[in-house]
Amino acid sequence: MFKKSSCMKKLFAEFFGTFWLVFGGCGAAVFAAGVPEIGIGLAGVSLAFGLTVLTMAYAVGHISGGHFNPAVSFGLFASGRFPAKDLFPYIVSQVLGASAAAACLWFILNGAGAFSVEGVGAFATNFYEMEGYAGRSYSMEAAFAAEFLLTAFFLIIILGATDKWANGKFAGIAIGLALTLIHLISIPITNTSVNPARSTSQALFVQGEALSQLWLFWAAPIAGAIVGGLIYKFLLEKTEE
Amino acid sequence: MFKKSSCMKKLFAEFFGTFWLVFGGCGAAVFAAGVPEIGIGLAGVSLAFGLTVLTMAYAVGHISGGHFNPAVSFGLFASGRFPAKDLFPYIVSQVLGASAAAACLWFILNGAGAFSVEGVGAFATNFYEMEGYAGRSYSMEAAFAAEFLLTAFFLIIILGATDKWANGKFAGIAIGLALTLIHLISIPITNTSVNPARSTSQALFVQGEALSQLWLFWAAPIAGAIVGGLIYKFLLEKTEE
Amino acid sequence: MFKKSSCMKKLFAEFFGTFWLVFGGCGAAVFAAGVPEIGIGLAGVSLAFGLTVLTMAYAVGHISGGHFNPAVSFGLFASGRFPAKDLFPYIVSQVLGASAAAACLWFILNGAGAFSVEGVGAFATNFYEMEGYAGRSYSMEAAFAAEFLLTAFFLIIILGATDKWANGKFAGIAIGLALTLIHLISIPITNTSVNPARSTSQALFVQGEALSQLWLFWAAPIAGAIVGGLIYKFLLEKTEE
Amino acid sequence: MFKKSSCMKKLFAEFFGTFWLVFGGCGAAVFAAGVPEIGIGLAGVSLAFGLTVLTMAYAVGHISGGHFNPAVSFGLFASGRFPAKDLFPYIVSQVLGASAAAACLWFILNGAGAFSVEGVGAFATNFYEMEGYAGRSYSMEAAFAAEFLLTAFFLIIILGATDKWANGKFAGIAIGLALTLIHLISIPITNTSVNPARSTSQALFVQGEALSQLWLFWAAPIAGAIVGGLIYKFLLEKTEE
Repeated sequence: MFKKSSCMKKLFAEFFGTFWLVFGGCGAAVFAAGVPEIGIGLAGVSLAFGLTVLTMAYAVGHISGGHFNPAVSFGLFASGRFPAKDLFPYIVSQVLGASAAAACLWFILNGAGAFSVEGVGAFATNFYEMEGYAGRSYSMEAAFAAEFLLTAFFLIIILGATDKWANGKFAGIAIGLALTLIHLISIPITNTSVNPARSTSQALFVQGEALSQLWLFWAAPIAGAIVGGLIYKFLLEKTEE
Repeated sequence: MFKKSSCMKKLFAEFFGTFWLVFGGCGAAVFAAGVPEIGIGLAGVSLAFGLTVLTMAYAVGHISGGHFNPAVSFGLFASGRFPAKDLFPYIVSQVLGASAAAACLWFILNGAGAFSVEGVGAFATNFYEMEGYAGRSYSMEAAFAAEFLLTAFFLIIILGATDKWANGKFAGIAIGLALTLIHLISIPITNTSVNPARSTSQALFVQGEALSQLWLFWAAPIAGAIVGGLIYKFLLEKTEE
Repeated sequence: MFKKSSCMKKLFAEFFGTFWLVFGGCGAAVFAAGVPEIGIGLAGVSLAFGLTVLTMAYAVGHISGGHFNPAVSFGLFASGRFPAKDLFPYIVSQVLGASAAAACLWFILNGAGAFSVEGVGAFATNFYEMEGYAGRSYSMEAAFAAEFLLTAFFLIIILGATDKWANGKFAGIAIGLALTLIHLISIPITNTSVNPARSTSQALFVQGEALSQLWLFWAAPIAGAIVGGLIYKFLLEKTEE
Repeated sequence: MFKKSSCMKKLFAEFFGTFWLVFGGCGAAVFAAGVPEIGIGLAGVSLAFGLTVLTMAYAVGHISGGHFNPAVSFGLFASGRFPAKDLFPYIVSQVLGASAAAACLWFILNGAGAFSVEGVGAFATNFYEMEGYAGRSYSMEAAFAAEFLLTAFFLIIILGATDKWANGKFAGIAIGLALTLIHLISIPITNTSVNPARSTSQALFVQGEALSQLWLFWAAPIAGAIVGGLIYKFLLEKTEE
């Protein structure tokens, strides 16, 4: 009985954490990035995504571990730190939380008549092989490589910062700011996913190509996360001294 | 006798903390946001608001708990962590501190002949249903939803980060940067309140619609804070293991 | 003998710390703030000033206490946490370190033929009653009030964050980011001093009005720091419980 | 046998850490800095460089010490905290990691047809005596002085923040943000090296003047690091009390 309640709390924590990631990160993008002259730009959006994770890691990390991202759950599983049986419920909670956040963003944007599915990366959707920022269009291979590499390093940082030999109390700062860094690098490439739940939630509202390209934003982050998890486990992790 | 003195110190801490929140956050907005080319923009203002809370949380958080915001006091009360009898004195101190800060901003702005009540969001007032940033005008419902949701999550983060199971020493960082994040998302929607004392202090000087719309910036943040407090208490908070 | 050597180390720490404050903060301003399109702007300069203190607080704070600022030394003295006999040597070290940094900035700027004494706030000097940013000119009274208030709160944060009841290990973060916040607010008012050593070092190279206005950037920060120190000591500091 | 495996893990940690430094820092520069209107600019690139070190310091600092930079290894050696026999393998790992990252950046950029060796500082290479930012060209002497001074202070901060008397757990934050600060100051001077591995990796792809000027970005940072190490050891480091 207690166990069941504690399990529900984990799933609620993942739901609210992933809600906040999408509401905060994608929200900063759709409300504030493009305001002329004084808008927060891509650096502000990068900071917003990172702070969603930093804040929720300290708020509910002690409850669920603070994944907020199916790729992270897969990577932790690959490195042996997360049980297989929890993968599915965690991922369902994450996708539900992300989608609920997207619905709230849709409602608020609609309140200004500003929701649109037009334009590359509309409603903060992810994309490849489309002319996005600065007139550049990154190939599918380049987009895959970027998402794969960034998620692999994200997992190395997550696993390292929460290692028993590390200063674990700082993990929320390191992991949150790692997500900021990842966005500073790659928003112009794919609008940055590294998180299939975040990509799915936005694509559900925009449909069209956002949905047909969604596979890459599940495949590349999860593959990268698994490889990152294995790299940490086999090449980096200290064994008992 | 000692108790009374200790109580006064709490109220002074709330007074100076809320003064700093308004002087720093609204001050950054009115002095520095709009400087052409090199101004700090909305991201700089967001950082300023967050840093007022981060700095004061470490400076006087050990004295008063570091609310600096009537909605936070209500939310902590709703979750059972703040006594009802302290609500009124805390809120009075917060509104007085905020108003004193607004008076200082007014004095300094006047020293450059730059105080004005013209324009949407003048003197960093909050607003809805007015064409603010990027030509968008958010409806009352959208503004209420944004203020409600953001304050609810602000309380979830505050309650989680100060939970006995959490790394409580990092709470000042998590909570301060949560306020930065909230501003990164929502300055273009309402100029961001989530804090009735902050809204009141600026509206007192601008009067007009800033005063007639002030109700929403009490109602939505306090309602959101109470709901956030209840969500944390009933859905997230770990019971004894 | 050991004592003398330890005393010298304190003065070296203040010398290098204040060197870094001026080289980093004013350096960011003169090299990087005004680059067209991609320059760091006032927000970048604000971050730079704060990070000089954050980094040096963790690097040499354990040696000298990490003042790097005559006003801070005065404020700590006023609150009873710094001995009168150390005021003079600390302040000399701070002014020497700041001036050495200004000389290095001058050398590097000259290497691009870019040192100039023309223009309001040239070489990151402080000023009042001059048309600085956004066409505004703040009166002497407004400039004094801003410098006074900001230094007073700087001291409240310093004293609070290093209080024995506080999470003292986070003081370097809180104090460094407080300086960032102070700059986010007030660069457009006076180019932000709150530090007489920093103001002096730049004025020595620019001469003219920068020197004749220098008195305010000693008087206002030191007066504010003393008042901030007394406010913390008498209105906020917890007595034994 | 165990020792050998533990030694390999150190070298892997330096490899991946320096990979991340170049992929993140130079990646932010080549992908995101110059996007019109909303690009992250030099401040965003500065933040990215710093966050690569902050994140990897918490992730793998407990494995290898987290140098990610030949100059840092030399400076630690000069101050007596790093054995001479490890210098060569560490530096090889760092240059290999940096070069692998540059290859990945090259692949992704090529995927948008955007790799170019034209223009001062192309592909985030370092330079001197060339008209870089804001039409300024810094002399070789000025460039050397800047790289020397910044690396010297970088080492003072590294040695101070990891001193046994300091709050060592915060070292990752102080050191990472020190690198952000260094970039905020000096990108317009040399594109900021302070790290020979980072300079080498980019020069290998651009060739031409980037290679012929590379000597300065080994000589100045290493000389500065050694001097910084000696300053900390002889002028600042506390002896037993």
